[in-house]
Amino acid sequence: MTLYKLTIEYDGTNYAGWQRQPDHPSVQEEIEKAIYGFCQQKVKLLVAGRTDAGVHALGQVAQVELAAFSKPMEPFEIAKAINAHLRPQPISILTVAEVAEDFHARFDAKSKLYRYKILNRPSPATVDKKRVWHVKRPLDAKAMHEAAQILLGHHDFSTFRDSDCQAKHPMRTLDRLDVTQHGEEIHFEAEAQSFIHHQVRNMVGTLALVGEGKWTKDDLARAFEAKDRTQGGPTAPADGLYMVRIDYD
Amino acid sequence: MTLYKLTIEYDGTNYAGWQRQPDHPSVQEEIEKAIYGFCQQKVKLLVAGRTDAGVHALGQVAQVELAAFSKPMEPFEIAKAINAHLRPQPISILTVAEVAEDFHARFDAKSKLYRYKILNRPSPATVDKKRVWHVKRPLDAKAMHEAAQILLGHHDFSTFRDSDCQAKHPMRTLDRLDVTQHGEEIHFEAEAQSFIHHQVRNMVGTLALVGEGKWTKDDLARAFEAKDRTQGGPTAPADGLYMVRIDYD
Repeated sequence: MTLYKLTIEYDGTNYAGWQRQPDHPSVQEEIEKAIYGFCQQKVKLLVAGRTDAGVHALGQVAQVELAAFSKPMEPFEIAKAINAHLRPQPISILTVAEVAEDFHARFDAKSKLYRYKILNRPSPATVDKKRVWHVKRPLDAKAMHEAAQILLGHHDFSTFRDSDCQAKHPMRTLDRLDVTQHGEEIHFEAEAQSFIHHQVRNMVGTLALVGEGKWTKDDLARAFEAKDRTQGGPTAPADGLYMVRIDYD
Repeated sequence: MTLYKLTIEYDGTNYAGWQRQPDHPSVQEEIEKAIYGFCQQKVKLLVAGRTDAGVHALGQVAQVELAAFSKPMEPFEIAKAINAHLRPQPISILTVAEVAEDFHARFDAKSKLYRYKILNRPSPATVDKKRVWHVKRPLDAKAMHEAAQILLGHHDFSTFRDSDCQAKHPMRTLDRLDVTQHGEEIHFEAEAQSFIHHQVRNMVGTLALVGEGKWTKDDLARAFEAKDRTQGGPTAPADGLYMVRIDYD
């Protein structure tokens, strides 16, 4: 058996999320089916971080163990073969790499980068529909960026923690949270070794209150210190969220 | 009656193109229906430049004449009302402006800008599926840019002219054709007062031959001078083409 690390891109719009579940299409199931299609091996992928329904990925990481093939295959040939069986699903294996047998996609991750995109203008999204959060009211990216810096460091993130979160505790270390304007779009980039459930979407939804001037930076600080989800702002929709990159040693 | 100029964005994937036609959804028909929905006026839009099936627009321009409303409306309110009736179509009225009664969206256009996007990597597109042309073989953007400069100026563009083209003649003045690399994407930007049918897609399809090293710059020059469509390269797919902007005085 050989252990492989897959780097994966997908449009999450039409999936119930990463994780396999009965009666709903999932990214995991589509890839496992494609692997079976190409080499008739029944496998179970182990993922670095599950994504929710509608969330996209530009660099998700999963691992899979495969038995030797009838003829030897280079990793890029494996990627090509899986992609051929994934068509026409909007899921793409970007790279395949052989890894040591003790590699763990989730526990070995040193840093994860998420991006969140807001389309900030009066008229609805078209070309990027379901791939941005459309916010009509004008947002101040600079004010959001300044306020976001309060959240950096090692803290209790309960204010941004979904009630369904299965993590053992709400302590996380946020290494970076940048808010930048790109024409009509506002991008959030959040980097940490790990995140609790809905953390990025809850931080974005709360910072949007700062962006539209409803909340001050102090309001954000107070909500954060309350360590209470009911004190935070709304959860931003899944559409705008992208898992961008996962770094390993 | 008041004449209005509409600036329009759309995802062309699921339309038979701009122009209204029987039994196929079109961008024109959707907007005309939305205008009827909001003010019960039966109108016919006049567009700056029709786009083909699958082609997108970030700044299409069309004009429409409307009778006075029961209560006066600001242009931005008209945009909002049309957008409300366009939902959930991926078509968005970006701006509405009152224009002089002799304004002509097509004849008054001073310059049009098209962008064409290639995703150049082995693995298929996901998040941008149907919004880029996926080319697996590596392309040399610099070689394509250099070759593209041959096409600038006033020329007979028959080599890049679709057989269905209804223009009176194949003479056009190409003001700009830039090819640039953006990570895994290659962007073409073509600017001219007007284009013949499929000109951008045929130029891109032909330049791709240069990009993959099948053609030299001299091969391109010879094909261009032949003034013969059969000497040009293939037509690049509609998916990657965007009408970006139309400038008026």
